[in-house]
Amino acid sequence: MAGSEFGTIFHISTWGESHGKGLGVVIDGCPAGLPLVEEDFTSYMERRRPNGGKLSTKRKEPDAVEILSGTFEGVTTGTPISLLIRNTDQHSQDYTAIADIFRPAHADFGFQTKYGVRDYRGGGRSSARETAARVAAAAVSTKILHSMGITFETRVTAIGGVPFEDSEAVVDESRSRGDSLGSEVHCTVRGVPAGIGDPVFDKLDAALAGAIFSIGAVRSLDIGDGHKVSSMHGSENNDSFVVRGGKVIPETNHAGGILGGISTGAPIELHVYFKPTPSISLPQKTVNRAGEEVEISIHGRHDPVIGPRAAVVVESMASLVILDQMMKNMTARLSSLQEFYRK
Amino acid sequence: MAGSEFGTIFHISTWGESHGKGLGVVIDGCPAGLPLVEEDFTSYMERRRPNGGKLSTKRKEPDAVEILSGTFEGVTTGTPISLLIRNTDQHSQDYTAIADIFRPAHADFGFQTKYGVRDYRGGGRSSARETAARVAAAAVSTKILHSMGITFETRVTAIGGVPFEDSEAVVDESRSRGDSLGSEVHCTVRGVPAGIGDPVFDKLDAALAGAIFSIGAVRSLDIGDGHKVSSMHGSENNDSFVVRGGKVIPETNHAGGILGGISTGAPIELHVYFKPTPSISLPQKTVNRAGEEVEISIHGRHDPVIGPRAAVVVESMASLVILDQMMKNMTARLSSLQEFYRK
Amino acid sequence: MAGSEFGTIFHISTWGESHGKGLGVVIDGCPAGLPLVEEDFTSYMERRRPNGGKLSTKRKEPDAVEILSGTFEGVTTGTPISLLIRNTDQHSQDYTAIADIFRPAHADFGFQTKYGVRDYRGGGRSSARETAARVAAAAVSTKILHSMGITFETRVTAIGGVPFEDSEAVVDESRSRGDSLGSEVHCTVRGVPAGIGDPVFDKLDAALAGAIFSIGAVRSLDIGDGHKVSSMHGSENNDSFVVRGGKVIPETNHAGGILGGISTGAPIELHVYFKPTPSISLPQKTVNRAGEEVEISIHGRHDPVIGPRAAVVVESMASLVILDQMMKNMTARLSSLQEFYRK
Amino acid sequence: MAGSEFGTIFHISTWGESHGKGLGVVIDGCPAGLPLVEEDFTSYMERRRPNGGKLSTKRKEPDAVEILSGTFEGVTTGTPISLLIRNTDQHSQDYTAIADIFRPAHADFGFQTKYGVRDYRGGGRSSARETAARVAAAAVSTKILHSMGITFETRVTAIGGVPFEDSEAVVDESRSRGDSLGSEVHCTVRGVPAGIGDPVFDKLDAALAGAIFSIGAVRSLDIGDGHKVSSMHGSENNDSFVVRGGKVIPETNHAGGILGGISTGAPIELHVYFKPTPSISLPQKTVNRAGEEVEISIHGRHDPVIGPRAAVVVESMASLVILDQMMKNMTARLSSLQEFYRK
Repeated sequence: MAGSEFGTIFHISTWGESHGKGLGVVIDGCPAGLPLVEEDFTSYMERRRPNGGKLSTKRKEPDAVEILSGTFEGVTTGTPISLLIRNTDQHSQDYTAIADIFRPAHADFGFQTKYGVRDYRGGGRSSARETAARVAAAAVSTKILHSMGITFETRVTAIGGVPFEDSEAVVDESRSRGDSLGSEVHCTVRGVPAGIGDPVFDKLDAALAGAIFSIGAVRSLDIGDGHKVSSMHGSENNDSFVVRGGKVIPETNHAGGILGGISTGAPIELHVYFKPTPSISLPQKTVNRAGEEVEISIHGRHDPVIGPRAAVVVESMASLVILDQMMKNMTARLSSLQEFYRK
Repeated sequence: MAGSEFGTIFHISTWGESHGKGLGVVIDGCPAGLPLVEEDFTSYMERRRPNGGKLSTKRKEPDAVEILSGTFEGVTTGTPISLLIRNTDQHSQDYTAIADIFRPAHADFGFQTKYGVRDYRGGGRSSARETAARVAAAAVSTKILHSMGITFETRVTAIGGVPFEDSEAVVDESRSRGDSLGSEVHCTVRGVPAGIGDPVFDKLDAALAGAIFSIGAVRSLDIGDGHKVSSMHGSENNDSFVVRGGKVIPETNHAGGILGGISTGAPIELHVYFKPTPSISLPQKTVNRAGEEVEISIHGRHDPVIGPRAAVVVESMASLVILDQMMKNMTARLSSLQEFYRK
Repeated sequence: MAGSEFGTIFHISTWGESHGKGLGVVIDGCPAGLPLVEEDFTSYMERRRPNGGKLSTKRKEPDAVEILSGTFEGVTTGTPISLLIRNTDQHSQDYTAIADIFRPAHADFGFQTKYGVRDYRGGGRSSARETAARVAAAAVSTKILHSMGITFETRVTAIGGVPFEDSEAVVDESRSRGDSLGSEVHCTVRGVPAGIGDPVFDKLDAALAGAIFSIGAVRSLDIGDGHKVSSMHGSENNDSFVVRGGKVIPETNHAGGILGGISTGAPIELHVYFKPTPSISLPQKTVNRAGEEVEISIHGRHDPVIGPRAAVVVESMASLVILDQMMKNMTARLSSLQEFYRK
Repeated sequence: MAGSEFGTIFHISTWGESHGKGLGVVIDGCPAGLPLVEEDFTSYMERRRPNGGKLSTKRKEPDAVEILSGTFEGVTTGTPISLLIRNTDQHSQDYTAIADIFRPAHADFGFQTKYGVRDYRGGGRSSARETAARVAAAAVSTKILHSMGITFETRVTAIGGVPFEDSEAVVDESRSRGDSLGSEVHCTVRGVPAGIGDPVFDKLDAALAGAIFSIGAVRSLDIGDGHKVSSMHGSENNDSFVVRGGKVIPETNHAGGILGGISTGAPIELHVYFKPTPSISLPQKTVNRAGEEVEISIHGRHDPVIGPRAAVVVESMASLVILDQMMKNMTARLSSLQEFYRK
């Protein structure tokens, strides 16, 4: 298992390189009875596509998702769902120049050291393009979660330390110099019932953190008030429980919806910090495979900021985790098992 | 699987409640040939023990680790290592008062909602005492890593936002008011070779993040420069590769030793943010199981700050992750497999 | 993971050697709300104990099971259940004579080759005594299955090729010569609902086969008519479906309750073939660790036949598989998930 | 996880239905550095193809395997290998007649009960066609095993209880009556080093048994002398160890190459018993989805005997298990880990 699999019950196995034939994912464990057609993927896939605008690469791909298996007459059958996204718009020649060079802040060096071979074209398996398969898988998990009243709100909140709505100037300035900028993404998940997550290693926040940090370029994650709580007193940070409309809820939500690894029913709040796009056209020092120090400046089509296209990836990973944990949670009580089989 | 297991090859399964008979862990996958006796656990366990001082609870337990299986004549045999830590110093009566109350910022409410029953004594399975089993397991993984030249340096860097060395006053003030404070812990891992970690979901940083956030009270994690990079330019954040003594290394280490999920050979830098201890004696509003709003103030023995005793737990989780990933890494190349069986 | 773990949702991790401090198991994933006390293990453990009679070793151990965690006030809490069985009646000196000898038909040689070290006392981890932990775990899974109307009937059907009821003479003759005999065990499971098991690799029969062959000394397994079907025509072997009392059932049960890996609702029939006890006092040729050919005759306390004490182990493995598969089955349909969270 | 995944380190995830767009498999965990091109699959895939002769269906498909990812310039890169086999020769109309009927000895009834929906065309996911993806995956594992001197010899030994070479008459007779026959397949694996397999649940024989029984229509498995040993004495069944050419080997091989779950270095012997093809044109009683008893006779293209095309599937499953266990085995000793990282 080389780490391209994710999830326990709703289990996905992704594959594909930036400049290979395509990318895809096999979902094993999707419940039967979900209406699913290829149109269900369009809007979700659109959100990670380059929009050709100031904030993204000019690479354009339709990223149409083809369903190869797992549905019959438009409904899932409980068998593996294989999804295929063909690569169509590749400029491989962009990369031959750097075939033997370890790009700074990229996986090149570690990958070469680990495997001894690599597909250098566009970063190969380590390309951000890999996330297309995650988003396709999450289009399915999110459709299921929506059917249970769980919703996501995900947005870029800052670029280069500047609030998103005011950030255009810094982006222009950075891009014009051939540089890039870091960014922040916030994701709120509403409607997750209390009681989801396991007490020790599979805490809901632990599962979310593992998922979010599996997105390239993520360097930090806050859950709820995040790093700010380290400067707080318990009397400030503790959320009192109150009764509202006969329901027990935390009056405030410093905890971001999770206590002791288990959801409280309050909104789950994730704040994610992305590093600047590593590929910049400014000259940089580095080393090549021959062990010689060289200078490179990386041209080709790159996002000046990662956040805008990564927002849907953050949401996708949260969706995959939450559905999987909700499925795992169904066997927490003996009475649930007994009722299920009494039917 | 209710989430008390961790690791793929070096796999641990922990158990135990704060006020039950004891805690323990079964390690399945420890290589044969490691000298291991009960004394090997002492210094590691000491680090998470209350020291009776200003920064920790007055609860005192020797936390002696008994080896029940997996060694013969002082050496591991490759079979499961079962470790037992008896609970000896319990004041269960401290807790009967809050048996039916959901303590703010604790797992009580979520746990009760999930399982319908719970051992309320000292937080039961959700007590920080659970981490004793993790530390015992990590005493083994760390002994293995030390034998390969990998070392850990872990320290509390701040309490309540004040640098650790200057924090005594704020701790005194907080404790005297019956309040608690948040804290920060920094862990540096040296000697991890380049090439450890897998490119997609099992990135080394993703595995570390999942492990660190599985520690109760962790609310944020920075890897390398962490959340600061979101305000940086690529030209500032990118670490140039250089050749030093014939070895390729990053000249700077903003990345904290990991790029694209794979180690670079540079030190791995983890910065962890803990919330304040949730148990405070100041009066708090909350709700009881009958759904009535009540006020509580929590007495008994609690740390005024979590960081000092949690530092070794951070180090332990990092140790478990790194050893497991290094073991997984041995099959990355066909040539390794062929050489192994050529012997 | 060195293979002492079993199950996906109802996950067990066993440990212990024949002549170490004891044996045990950690059950992670047992639902909350099951009444469980130490007396629940007695009758199940009794079934694998030597009865001192003609068919078993003279070694006598109470095999009392101590519950170390996972219950509160006599009910499971959903946290890991740690079970401990102390070793009390050991004659280690029986084994020093063969410390350096590879006993024929035993794991000694393979184990030594794999790990380089081994606890030779009584076979260490490879002793049949290891199964005590499986039986303890299955006492829990079986209690859950009983609560859902699922029952087991397990019996020795033949010894040395002679029907069990007529086998006493052959056993006497064999034992008197210091030899041992093979045996057959049949297990029938009633009440498993139709629809359990997954279509491809996790077929119910595949999971049962993996479980049954994990019992030392098992050399063959028939499901339903087993090896006899290879001589049959489809027209003889196919079970027609009929309607009885408004329920669809197979009219005959050549298939042994499983078709295409999924249960049909008919009784599940397993027929297991055990080799003769490998430890015999007749002289045998073998090799020692120094690579010298030697002759040994194995004394000490050994069963002349394996089946009688292994029957409950067969039942235990079937129980662990069936409960786990029933728990997995709860997420097969989207409607089940939606109903569960509608509550 | 709905059971279409197999293996721990060399992990495969298969997908596809008999009459969907195609079938495929994603291999996650294949080591980097293996030369692999599409021609490598041809001979292996040919072995499970209908040969148009007396012993197989008339359905003809090239079963060309397309490599979608995981290789670069003809060599594996350590990233997931996605393999695609398009369905090209389908006669779906053959099946509309039985869309609502539960075919005897097929998965139809259990599948419908479990999922509530199913792709009835050709058995959908439960079709023997599913095994094409397993064979494609095993073409890769077998290429690796061959590079380490491990070889497979697999053959049909009997049909309808008659030795294969004499069976043509019984096949003719059975086929002419629209009936089918059971069969036996024997697989010998040579060159597996001693020491492979884990002592308890992941015994090599347990893993092989789980794999073999996951092949539809398998009803029994013998390892070594299999069910015959239940009638033997220990003195007959025990294989003495001897020294030959300085190597310790068992003088005989009743055990079929595995003792206590660990390989001895002797050839591994598997004998597999298949039921007759369930689809026969003779009239059969059964029930339809409306719960009415009906009579059907199944026409269309079906093998009169399963063994001839299933032989390569038996070999494939053995190959996947053995490679995976050999990869797991590399971390059994601390010294191996230390040597690996000393490099």
